[in-house]
Amino acid sequence: MRLRVRLLNIQAGGRNIAVLGDSTASMLGIHSSDRVQVSHGDRHVVAIVNVASDFPRDHLGVYDEVSKKLNVQTDDEVEVQLAESPQSLHYVQAKIRNERLRKKEIDSIVRDVVERHLSDIELASFVTALQIHGLSMDEIEALSRAMAETGSSLDLDKKCVLDKHSIGGIPGDKTSILVVPIVAAAGFTIPKTSSRAVTSPAGTADRVESLCPVSLSVEEIKEVVNKTNGCMVWGGALELAPADDIFIQVEYPLAIDPMLLPSIMSKKKAIGATHVVVDIPTGRGAKIKTIGEAENLADDFIELGQRLGIRVECGVTFGEQPLGHAIGPALEAREALSTLMGEGPADLVEKAISLAGILLEMAGLKNGKSRAQDLLSSGKAEQKLREIIGAQGGNSQIRIEDVRVGDKRQTVNTDLEGEVMWVNNEDLAKIAKEAGAPKDKGAGVMLLAKLGDHVKKGDRLFDVYAERDTRLESALKLAASLQPIGLSRRPEDRMLVSRIPAPVVHRKAFTLER
Amino acid sequence: MRLRVRLLNIQAGGRNIAVLGDSTASMLGIHSSDRVQVSHGDRHVVAIVNVASDFPRDHLGVYDEVSKKLNVQTDDEVEVQLAESPQSLHYVQAKIRNERLRKKEIDSIVRDVVERHLSDIELASFVTALQIHGLSMDEIEALSRAMAETGSSLDLDKKCVLDKHSIGGIPGDKTSILVVPIVAAAGFTIPKTSSRAVTSPAGTADRVESLCPVSLSVEEIKEVVNKTNGCMVWGGALELAPADDIFIQVEYPLAIDPMLLPSIMSKKKAIGATHVVVDIPTGRGAKIKTIGEAENLADDFIELGQRLGIRVECGVTFGEQPLGHAIGPALEAREALSTLMGEGPADLVEKAISLAGILLEMAGLKNGKSRAQDLLSSGKAEQKLREIIGAQGGNSQIRIEDVRVGDKRQTVNTDLEGEVMWVNNEDLAKIAKEAGAPKDKGAGVMLLAKLGDHVKKGDRLFDVYAERDTRLESALKLAASLQPIGLSRRPEDRMLVSRIPAPVVHRKAFTLER
Repeated sequence: MRLRVRLLNIQAGGRNIAVLGDSTASMLGIHSSDRVQVSHGDRHVVAIVNVASDFPRDHLGVYDEVSKKLNVQTDDEVEVQLAESPQSLHYVQAKIRNERLRKKEIDSIVRDVVERHLSDIELASFVTALQIHGLSMDEIEALSRAMAETGSSLDLDKKCVLDKHSIGGIPGDKTSILVVPIVAAAGFTIPKTSSRAVTSPAGTADRVESLCPVSLSVEEIKEVVNKTNGCMVWGGALELAPADDIFIQVEYPLAIDPMLLPSIMSKKKAIGATHVVVDIPTGRGAKIKTIGEAENLADDFIELGQRLGIRVECGVTFGEQPLGHAIGPALEAREALSTLMGEGPADLVEKAISLAGILLEMAGLKNGKSRAQDLLSSGKAEQKLREIIGAQGGNSQIRIEDVRVGDKRQTVNTDLEGEVMWVNNEDLAKIAKEAGAPKDKGAGVMLLAKLGDHVKKGDRLFDVYAERDTRLESALKLAASLQPIGLSRRPEDRMLVSRIPAPVVHRKAFTLER
Repeated sequence: MRLRVRLLNIQAGGRNIAVLGDSTASMLGIHSSDRVQVSHGDRHVVAIVNVASDFPRDHLGVYDEVSKKLNVQTDDEVEVQLAESPQSLHYVQAKIRNERLRKKEIDSIVRDVVERHLSDIELASFVTALQIHGLSMDEIEALSRAMAETGSSLDLDKKCVLDKHSIGGIPGDKTSILVVPIVAAAGFTIPKTSSRAVTSPAGTADRVESLCPVSLSVEEIKEVVNKTNGCMVWGGALELAPADDIFIQVEYPLAIDPMLLPSIMSKKKAIGATHVVVDIPTGRGAKIKTIGEAENLADDFIELGQRLGIRVECGVTFGEQPLGHAIGPALEAREALSTLMGEGPADLVEKAISLAGILLEMAGLKNGKSRAQDLLSSGKAEQKLREIIGAQGGNSQIRIEDVRVGDKRQTVNTDLEGEVMWVNNEDLAKIAKEAGAPKDKGAGVMLLAKLGDHVKKGDRLFDVYAERDTRLESALKLAASLQPIGLSRRPEDRMLVSRIPAPVVHRKAFTLER
């Protein structure tokens, strides 16, 4: 059927969507969510149909994605016909029935995800089925490979490419900003790509951006790495595993994360990593709650690595409280910089040299942790960070005070005396976000009382930083209601942790960071 | 944050959707699929956000649904802020984790479905989780009640309201057009609402529309029923259980139907039915494949009925081939009319009087089936059909030849001799749809060779009807490739039913008809 184009002049978030009025749809025998093949000259697009009741007859509304691919203007004529649903949809349905998917079936799904042949409804159903049924290691491997192969890759032409990854989950985790320069200073290649925050107050890319530009092209990354051995860049625009980015768009509203392993490892495969250390922060307020869970996950990472030809070791790390003091992009960048300059919190130093040490040992060195400590204490890691900052287009002479933090500040004190018995990761993240992080880079929280500290009446628990008075105010209000830090002389003084008068809605904390 | 409205001048299929450019979204700390509260004066709407990369800064794009609710024009200022996700989303997530939902949790989900507070992604995840985990009878009851209570109802003020429903699955099933007049002629109230075809060549509403108008308002339906005891109308615009219509929009592309029971019974509850007979066509080519499955489903229908205060009986019917000869709206209307006039296929007559008989007995009569046969043979049922046609605004004197069928016709003959050993329901439905049904009302198939018939070389198997030459041609081409009728002297002459040289994609037949 020939229809006239009407440009809608708006993007559909990457999706291929076309709009039909209901009488025209009915003429074509088409329902909402069916697919049409739209042809204009020798260009063809398969689009998913939305039916609108008041859209003009014999017209096809097209979002920008479709109009660009077809190169059409308003009033151009196009040929429109009902298209078969893609083969991959049958495999999605097979997964709902809990069938195991074969490699070529997973390839077909991932290819259709990247080419936008599957709708949000179909993707949501697929990730839900994966969340419920779980994935076999064969499926995980096939997904990892397919997601890596359908994206671009970073070809550094090195025999040994190291990488470090945290599965995320605790606030203030700026470890990568220390590990990368330590490892690079030891002479090894470590091209680190990171994400921005999705659900957290800061992602590594947000933190590093307070020090230097992070949006580099693949070519620019190669240059930086060839010059300095390392980099710390935003992976988002590199299309390293574009299917994963599309899956995340539907996982995010559902707060599920069934593809953690393939999501992480496909990106490691795409950058050509040969040795990876995976950090698994573990604790009640982290993504992984128990050591047992952490060990199971570690086994899976290691097995998947073997299948993909990547040597993986995991570090299970203490995740019951934020790392260091700073939470929020600029505050964390400052803390990382000052730690490299010799003045940092002990937990951050210990974690960074432990993980860097594992990587150095994986790469063949002995006594990795003490080598890492030496590179840190000697200032060589700081020197390396400055080289990387300079190579990425930042000021290599940057001083702590050049990293701007919010000038609206207020301290939260305690009117109790006691030991810090618990620190609520999630609540502190919420307060930092309420203060404006990650969008307001200078906003966040400086945590001053940590587990085991003894505090007296009137002592500072934490400072809130903001760039705007309104945000400072609402963050302080939230802090007062959440009371993120639990104090007590001894456990027996405060045995009741919370009182539940009515059914609780399970608002599970959800971390979706890569 | 105050933003300027830009009307997109297009509907979003009932959804409340707003568009933000990415820099504005990032200022507000909003990702795609987050919700915003949009306020204009004292009007407020919660909309789901799509982020577009090229949308102008500080503007909010709104689809028609949102602009109408807010009463805004382009360039009006609105206040926009991040809104919490609805409580019901936590219950959707609980269902993904296979928790049993309580009544008030299901109420919350259904209310938010009707008010469009849940996105397609969230709905798709919910129906997928239901499909995988199944529903308890408590959940089914709560869903049925919630779906009925959130819609309109038909209040006929009668002590006894009968209804008949088929779960669907075989082509050519025009039984309702016989059952309604038989039951109404016996003096009982039977306000039948039906759907149009979704995946089939004809729904009951499509069939009846070849005889008289079917789009009546609730008030008009009451008038028709008060006058004639019965009606046969399209239920789609009556908002009887609007949540169900929204669920179907996401079930359809996924080809899953986890809410069959609440979907059907909520509508029975909404029309105030007190006695319902449910037809469960059973056979290899039907929705329900085995008698065991059919009996389990029947038990569930009966238990659900008890819980809802509706007496239910089920009829498991032979579903291995189409019912009667005609497939396609007008062809079926003709066949139903001529059957009521005394000339109909035996299987259709037998099925109609059996089901009508069950209803009459449920309502207190003895020997229901023979009473039904009498009402049919005596012409009283025909007379009643004509009354209903007239009351609904049609021509009560309608003759068979007044029902227009396609004038492009061709017969498909066989070049074999033998008994009809199988008839493929799904293939015949495909051929009828290829010929233009249900959109082209006169299109379809007249099946002339049925199970057990003996045919000789050159005998007619079926006729294809179309309104357009192109459709006739492509339907005949499809028929030639599908070969929907299997002939053989004895089973041992054709033991090989199909040969599978490579893995099969499981293209399960999917019937989504209510």
